[in-house]
Amino acid sequence: MSKVFLKTAMDSVKQMSPLVHNITNYVTVNDCANILLAAHASPIMADDISEVVEITSLCNALVLNIGTLNERTIAAMYAAGKKSSELGHPIILDPVGAGASSLRTETAKGLIKALEVSVIRGNMSEIKALHTNTRTTQGVDANAIDAVTEQNLNDSITLAKQMSQDLSAIIAITGAIDIITDGEKAYVIRNGHAQMSRITGTGCMLSSLIGAYSAANRSQMLEAIATAVALMGICGEQAWAACERDGLGTSTMKTRLIDKISTITPDDMVGFYKGECL
Amino acid sequence: MSKVFLKTAMDSVKQMSPLVHNITNYVTVNDCANILLAAHASPIMADDISEVVEITSLCNALVLNIGTLNERTIAAMYAAGKKSSELGHPIILDPVGAGASSLRTETAKGLIKALEVSVIRGNMSEIKALHTNTRTTQGVDANAIDAVTEQNLNDSITLAKQMSQDLSAIIAITGAIDIITDGEKAYVIRNGHAQMSRITGTGCMLSSLIGAYSAANRSQMLEAIATAVALMGICGEQAWAACERDGLGTSTMKTRLIDKISTITPDDMVGFYKGECL
Amino acid sequence: MSKVFLKTAMDSVKQMSPLVHNITNYVTVNDCANILLAAHASPIMADDISEVVEITSLCNALVLNIGTLNERTIAAMYAAGKKSSELGHPIILDPVGAGASSLRTETAKGLIKALEVSVIRGNMSEIKALHTNTRTTQGVDANAIDAVTEQNLNDSITLAKQMSQDLSAIIAITGAIDIITDGEKAYVIRNGHAQMSRITGTGCMLSSLIGAYSAANRSQMLEAIATAVALMGICGEQAWAACERDGLGTSTMKTRLIDKISTITPDDMVGFYKGECL
Repeated sequence: MSKVFLKTAMDSVKQMSPLVHNITNYVTVNDCANILLAAHASPIMADDISEVVEITSLCNALVLNIGTLNERTIAAMYAAGKKSSELGHPIILDPVGAGASSLRTETAKGLIKALEVSVIRGNMSEIKALHTNTRTTQGVDANAIDAVTEQNLNDSITLAKQMSQDLSAIIAITGAIDIITDGEKAYVIRNGHAQMSRITGTGCMLSSLIGAYSAANRSQMLEAIATAVALMGICGEQAWAACERDGLGTSTMKTRLIDKISTITPDDMVGFYKGECL
Repeated sequence: MSKVFLKTAMDSVKQMSPLVHNITNYVTVNDCANILLAAHASPIMADDISEVVEITSLCNALVLNIGTLNERTIAAMYAAGKKSSELGHPIILDPVGAGASSLRTETAKGLIKALEVSVIRGNMSEIKALHTNTRTTQGVDANAIDAVTEQNLNDSITLAKQMSQDLSAIIAITGAIDIITDGEKAYVIRNGHAQMSRITGTGCMLSSLIGAYSAANRSQMLEAIATAVALMGICGEQAWAACERDGLGTSTMKTRLIDKISTITPDDMVGFYKGECL
Repeated sequence: MSKVFLKTAMDSVKQMSPLVHNITNYVTVNDCANILLAAHASPIMADDISEVVEITSLCNALVLNIGTLNERTIAAMYAAGKKSSELGHPIILDPVGAGASSLRTETAKGLIKALEVSVIRGNMSEIKALHTNTRTTQGVDANAIDAVTEQNLNDSITLAKQMSQDLSAIIAITGAIDIITDGEKAYVIRNGHAQMSRITGTGCMLSSLIGAYSAANRSQMLEAIATAVALMGICGEQAWAACERDGLGTSTMKTRLIDKISTITPDDMVGFYKGECL
């Protein structure tokens, strides 16, 4: 399969340097800003309702992350999202912990209903919580019974496509195996390393990256999002390999992951990519 | 003295992987999440009153940290704390800066009065501010006159035991010498390094770790908390030794501290432990 | 030119260890706290209106950073700022993103009008937005047309001096070339590295450092602020040199920058300083 889209997507981000508006949680916000800068994009964080419309109008994409949502920021998400929808900017929703509380589930569902959400990025438990009324989320990590495995891969892809159609958005389900689908085509990506689940924010950082990749690649959104997902996985596996070699641990892995985002070349990406389009 | 409790406490955390609900400050929240993951526990941060009861019900422990408290999050702390008390989950209070403002002192005292607080972790100035009406706190670091030293150690232990009895909670006073007491027994720990006071969040991170250790070791809470305190000290001293050797500074020390939490073995712990039970 | 002021300013911070109250954004707050500790100062973050007056009274300087302002924290900035003005403490304003939204521009202008602001630290776009009604800010980074270059240096210095006089504050404009002026004298500093713009928070961290340097050097504020600006630039260039040598990237650069702040000596500073007073 041609992997040229990886290079195209990366080059477009570097060339455009998209400005990404993030209304996000206070746990991983610094990492989200730094990973955007590492990837040659620019972050702006603003969550007050009296400025988000103005701010999002200056930007190229909007990332809504409900990791530490509250009444004040939820209102800002709707306001920014409406403006962003009007302007036709990509909106990325990261439904952190959907299923773990009604507030999270209902907020995520409400945003999907009210806005033109382009991409939903989460783990399988979170995305299922938005699609059905089942509740399998435990905390902010995917429940084991929801993991995408080689055994249930075909069923998982079918479900992901259905969810994409029902929610009218590209779905990016990340975990040991990642599935990215627009309801028709699906990318399956096997990059990444299990140790990445021992740092907080890999999901949030990826959602912010998807904001940049979507903004800079409007004519091939699905491929761009698959590229962002693969980029995160590849940089994570490289980071962990370096830590293992040097006898270091999880915090250095986070540092090295962002380092790698800042130094990786399109050619490296092509070499390390373990994805397929089904 | 037998050090087998160190291994037991560590193994229990690894086996249970407790989910710890943190209502905490926005300064060190990322480090708190990452240290929990490094220690094989799971963090969840949620501070909106409309979801904290639901969230804390999913969890195994609750950490209340008043580092950047406000009216909105104080209300959430009471709501989560009441539910957590009902459920019999361990509640850990970190009274950051108690004594530095009435809001902090009164909030910490109010939480202790209203909730079943299991553990209070702070520096001597902060904990004294909760116990007496003296005010010796200067900022968020312990005042020098409150330091536990070899000279005042016996008096400090006696005071700590009294505070534990009066406040009906295990008290963990950290500094150059740490004292952990349930009012009867006291652990005195001499691990750690002075350079640890040159990074923010060592106290907050420890309070989050104590959440995990308490949750996974309900039948030997005091020993588990002493283990968490020693773990932080040992990983800090190892981290600084590595930085000194490599000519690096305080920010790398923070990274290496969390690294070490993620890689240290129970056997290492036993080897480096400088504690005694009095 | 004598560079003795660099040593004096650094020594004074180390000796006084000033306590700096920061009302700041949740993106870079952890780095601001850690850089203050690395520089031998002490941070305290507090933004609730019911405690900021008390907190700021304990401190030696106040840093107001509007990076993620909201109605609640704006009120706290005014309250803390009024108390700090009464007490004659240095107030440092970091007008992050002024020009990008009316809320930011008007808040920054309002604070300057209401308070005794001692220092304004920002990029040229931000500071111009406070001085004129032009709007050239794009996001939180300086617009290219506003960059201070060797070509427009004389005009930039003249403008900076005028802005300092009109706004009644020392102005520190940072970028590839930094200008620090009290309206009479101007320091021009050419330390730093372009890669520093690929991490978030270098500006915020510098504003917090300026808080410490101003507090500890009241009788030579302009020189102290120039020292803080040079310190940031020198540590940034050293950090990037180390990353380039070791094949590492932007996240390690941030770590090494703070490391260097914690280890650099006054003699190193004198050796690396590329500044002049005009």
